[in-house]
Amino acid sequence: MPCGEFDLIRRYFTDRQKSRRDVIKSIGDDCALLKPINDQLLAVSTDTLVCGVHFFKDIPPHALGFKSLAVNLSDLAAMGATPSWVSLALTLPEIDEEWVSEFSDGFFKAADYYDIELIGGDMSSGPLSITLTVQGQVSQEQQLLRDGAQIGDWICVTGNLGDSALALESLYGRVDLPDDDRAALLKKHYYPTPRLLAGQKLRTIASSAIDLSDGLASDLTHIANQSNCMAVIDIDALPLSEALLRNTTHEQALKLALTGGEDYELCFTVSPQALGSVQSALKHTNTPFVCIGQMQHGEGISFQSNNKALDIDFKGFEHF
Amino acid sequence: MPCGEFDLIRRYFTDRQKSRRDVIKSIGDDCALLKPINDQLLAVSTDTLVCGVHFFKDIPPHALGFKSLAVNLSDLAAMGATPSWVSLALTLPEIDEEWVSEFSDGFFKAADYYDIELIGGDMSSGPLSITLTVQGQVSQEQQLLRDGAQIGDWICVTGNLGDSALALESLYGRVDLPDDDRAALLKKHYYPTPRLLAGQKLRTIASSAIDLSDGLASDLTHIANQSNCMAVIDIDALPLSEALLRNTTHEQALKLALTGGEDYELCFTVSPQALGSVQSALKHTNTPFVCIGQMQHGEGISFQSNNKALDIDFKGFEHF
Repeated sequence: MPCGEFDLIRRYFTDRQKSRRDVIKSIGDDCALLKPINDQLLAVSTDTLVCGVHFFKDIPPHALGFKSLAVNLSDLAAMGATPSWVSLALTLPEIDEEWVSEFSDGFFKAADYYDIELIGGDMSSGPLSITLTVQGQVSQEQQLLRDGAQIGDWICVTGNLGDSALALESLYGRVDLPDDDRAALLKKHYYPTPRLLAGQKLRTIASSAIDLSDGLASDLTHIANQSNCMAVIDIDALPLSEALLRNTTHEQALKLALTGGEDYELCFTVSPQALGSVQSALKHTNTPFVCIGQMQHGEGISFQSNNKALDIDFKGFEHF
Repeated sequence: MPCGEFDLIRRYFTDRQKSRRDVIKSIGDDCALLKPINDQLLAVSTDTLVCGVHFFKDIPPHALGFKSLAVNLSDLAAMGATPSWVSLALTLPEIDEEWVSEFSDGFFKAADYYDIELIGGDMSSGPLSITLTVQGQVSQEQQLLRDGAQIGDWICVTGNLGDSALALESLYGRVDLPDDDRAALLKKHYYPTPRLLAGQKLRTIASSAIDLSDGLASDLTHIANQSNCMAVIDIDALPLSEALLRNTTHEQALKLALTGGEDYELCFTVSPQALGSVQSALKHTNTPFVCIGQMQHGEGISFQSNNKALDIDFKGFEHF
């Protein structure tokens, strides 16, 4: 890329960031220099979004900028970490000033709101893709891991499940939605809410947590396997929005909620004794949540309805 | 990518890493958890390498794995930082087990040698590219920045310049090299030596430093501009290898040394009084270096030979 084009991009990113006091040196030297809080742990996560794989070529660039950061922040939320810094590697086939400007607006909408500072990165010429590395900080004694669930713990999720996946079906043209529902669902798909405050509150209360990116069935299996438990889900308790229920059959709604992915809600486990603390903590952060099941002896994940086991065939779920 | 292919890749990366004590949680949770040293600064750098832009499609995967980490470590070297952790985002068009195995061998050859641990990342399906984020640690009082050069400081470089660029000319088929020279130059191009120990030694001695990725003329201009000085280079003092001199005209050799790039040597400035300390420190790390000029009043970079100013036209340098 010629220098002038680099300068253009730098202007849209370098000049817009605000300055955290713990950023000693930002863009413009060989490395960024950062000052972590003594005795805290760093939480680090990397995500890549590739055009044509993770998003459509015609995705609104503002949405792409916001979402690329929000989904990575969701990983910090699942660790109970407080966001600090982010590096952005942006690979672009060409410099389209309007596109870069809108992408940058969306990116900084999330960065400013969640008080995370862009501290460096790389701009390259090539097929469109975005790689972010976010860093947060968390107390040494208060990590929210995947392997801490105990037999008897309740399984809970924040927000609703399946809305983002229904929006994706609409983008694929596989479902027709009324305009109002489509707009509301697309907003959830493009502008997910990383549950950062909820994660920080749950840090001292929950026994395990994960963020829901691949779909509850797949993500909760990680908690079950790493905690040596079986997750038993009451499918009648799954939190489904009115918009989802209005526009799908019951089976479709379940499929989207369990396997659709991209919810970016938190799934966590908590001992029955601590459930009251969860209710009080999440009320303070204005985060809706429900209990959807319990950890039992066994492995993997199983489903029930009206206290009867259900055999759900996820293979049949592969296409809408 | 189907799960099985992910597992294959994870096996080549997750199972091979050694364990630093400051890595509390590595691959397998939402984030890695790391324990920085109290009162030190983090140095963070991100680099993207895109197939067809930064490397040829047929680059030996072992070389690509090594080089992708080594060039990023070179940024840590220029800050005087000690390497700690690296995240790897690898985007692959297909899973070729032999390719992945060789890439991983090259990557870990560098990671193990320089004691940096792979702590996470992302594997995606898409056009071949690699994004690394490396992290190192450095004392708060001892940063090696680009803006510290003073009028009168000597300008020095480690190693030789231009060898990697001549190898690239050979890969483009624009120059014929004898087999021995070609092999030696390609080794420098594919397996650059990040000057980490030298950078750490220079931290308390040098007034500024940068690593040479784009070529001396371009990189040294950053030091000059950020330090409000003019860098005056004696072109007869440039460190040129026998292999470079044997296979190029004098003008070609200068062009490659000044603008070829990918040397991954350190360029640093030092006060005349501290030059003795540099000599002693770099002797201990077995790092060759020479003085190639001096910082003077003015701006940008200028060149002289036999005490006469030279007007070098870099535009004429664009093609070999």
